[in-house]
Amino acid sequence: MAAGRARPRGEERRAEILRAALEVIAERGYRGASLGAVAERVGLTQQGLLHYFPTKEALLVAVLEARDQWDAVPHGEWRLDLLGSLVEYNAMRPGIVQTFSALLGESVTDGHPARPFFTGRYEAVRASFAAVLRAEYGERLPGGLTPEAVAPLMVAVMDGLQYQWLLDPESVDMPGAFRAFLALLGAGPGQHLD
Amino acid sequence: MAAGRARPRGEERRAEILRAALEVIAERGYRGASLGAVAERVGLTQQGLLHYFPTKEALLVAVLEARDQWDAVPHGEWRLDLLGSLVEYNAMRPGIVQTFSALLGESVTDGHPARPFFTGRYEAVRASFAAVLRAEYGERLPGGLTPEAVAPLMVAVMDGLQYQWLLDPESVDMPGAFRAFLALLGAGPGQHLD
Repeated sequence: MAAGRARPRGEERRAEILRAALEVIAERGYRGASLGAVAERVGLTQQGLLHYFPTKEALLVAVLEARDQWDAVPHGEWRLDLLGSLVEYNAMRPGIVQTFSALLGESVTDGHPARPFFTGRYEAVRASFAAVLRAEYGERLPGGLTPEAVAPLMVAVMDGLQYQWLLDPESVDMPGAFRAFLALLGAGPGQHLD
Repeated sequence: MAAGRARPRGEERRAEILRAALEVIAERGYRGASLGAVAERVGLTQQGLLHYFPTKEALLVAVLEARDQWDAVPHGEWRLDLLGSLVEYNAMRPGIVQTFSALLGESVTDGHPARPFFTGRYEAVRASFAAVLRAEYGERLPGGLTPEAVAPLMVAVMDGLQYQWLLDPESVDMPGAFRAFLALLGAGPGQHLD
């Protein structure tokens, strides 16, 4: 209001609001989150927040888009060892994992605004993982499975392990469990250890 | 109130309320659910509902306990083919799967009343699955993994596939994907097809 330090520019303010929204969603879920709680965390009135995000749903969309920007690897550049690194990285950021695990859970409830995002995202991720598996293993994986048959399992393992790990981080070694899944797939056709 | 059909006994009324609570949680999640909405669905006032379940949390606990009762297989009697049948069965009851996927998602948010239930349940389920895997495959599974290393992956696959299937039932064949996971584990040491 008065003099003091310069008011952050709009871009910075938006980023601050997004960070606060991630926290509030991690704590309460989206349906349990209120714009007032997000506003309070960044020292804005609710009216002030609405200047940046006119609705709660607009804020959710921005959170989901930001996630995709941060984590995006250009199409066709994923490799199996990078996925292992991503799981290691996720184990260092429980807050973000909590936000998105909570949102995924809510997204299956009726008419949830995150549902189209997750539906579309999983379709793309399954296709992307199938391409990664094909590049690593060729057309046939253990059990005679195609890359397309294994891709949804790899997605499911990543998501499911996140819940087990968030609930019980002392007992569940998320990166180790993901490596165990890769061990089930074998060492890859080019690197067989016989 | 007046004559008409006999008022259901307490037990029946409780069962009705639990069914209504399952539906409302599937639609809105637990945090988004209200006792008023549950009461309305069974034709009770909120005050009337409180006679059966004094708090929203007591109703949640009853829902979770009911799930465990319905689905319980006596300890030591699970077999790998029964798990496949359970996944087939789940694919016939999307409402129940939606309720528990929504609750699992919420359970990782701060201070959620379902968290202790899910934490304890996963610990027990991992132990139970490890015993099933040991009975089927012995001490070593593909990739040199122990039954204890594969058990959390099997849990994760079941949970993760439920989200993908609920979001996109046309694209995701949940029972088929679970069978693909079992194919990754091989045919079992006694039944190797070489």
